[in-house]
Amino acid sequence: MLCKIPNPPYYAVIFTTLQSDNTEGYLEMAKQMEDLVSLQKGFLGFDSARDKVGITVSYWKDLESINLWRNNMEHQAAKQTGKEQWYKDYTLRIAKVERQY
Amino acid sequence: MLCKIPNPPYYAVIFTTLQSDNTEGYLEMAKQMEDLVSLQKGFLGFDSARDKVGITVSYWKDLESINLWRNNMEHQAAKQTGKEQWYKDYTLRIAKVERQY
Repeated sequence: MLCKIPNPPYYAVIFTTLQSDNTEGYLEMAKQMEDLVSLQKGFLGFDSARDKVGITVSYWKDLESINLWRNNMEHQAAKQTGKEQWYKDYTLRIAKVERQY
Repeated sequence: MLCKIPNPPYYAVIFTTLQSDNTEGYLEMAKQMEDLVSLQKGFLGFDSARDKVGITVSYWKDLESINLWRNNMEHQAAKQTGKEQWYKDYTLRIAKVERQY
C-alpha cells in the first residue's frame, strides 16, 4: 500500500541510504523504529523501498514534529548504530510537500 | 552511489509506485527515461529504489524545470503506459527541500 495523505502542505523527510555489508540487527531495529515512529505526534505515514539503495520517505504535519522525532532517544540510538555499522553512506533531506497528484 | 546536491533550497519530485504484474517493457522505458531526464534543464540528480514499492526521488533547480519535464512529450507517453499497464497505484509529490544532513 502506498501512503496517501490529504491536503498539502505537509512535510517529507527523505532518507536515502547505501547499506554496508554488516547488516546484523538491521531488520529488527527497522521494525522497532517503524512501530515507534507511528506513535509520534504529527506523524502522517511513510513509504519505503530498498534494493542496493534504500529510500524511506516519512510524512509529517510540521517541522516541530520532525524535530521531536529527530531528538527521540531511542531513535538517536538507532541512528548512531546506522552511522557506525549499517550504512556506508546516507543523506537526510527535509522538504515541504507543496503539491501532489 | 547516493545523489549529493549542495546548498538547499532546491526541489524534489517524490514518485512512489506499486507495480502491477504486467511489467513488459518497463525496464527499457525506465532506462530511456533516466537517459532523457538527465538532459533536462534544471535537473540535478535522482535516487531510486524498488522492492514491492518503488520510490524515485528526482531533484530539480526550480519548479519551472519540473513543469517542463512534466510536459515533455516522450515523458508523457511513458507516464501514460505507466498508468495503464505498469502501475497498480502511484503518487507524485512536489516538495521544496529546505535542509539536508
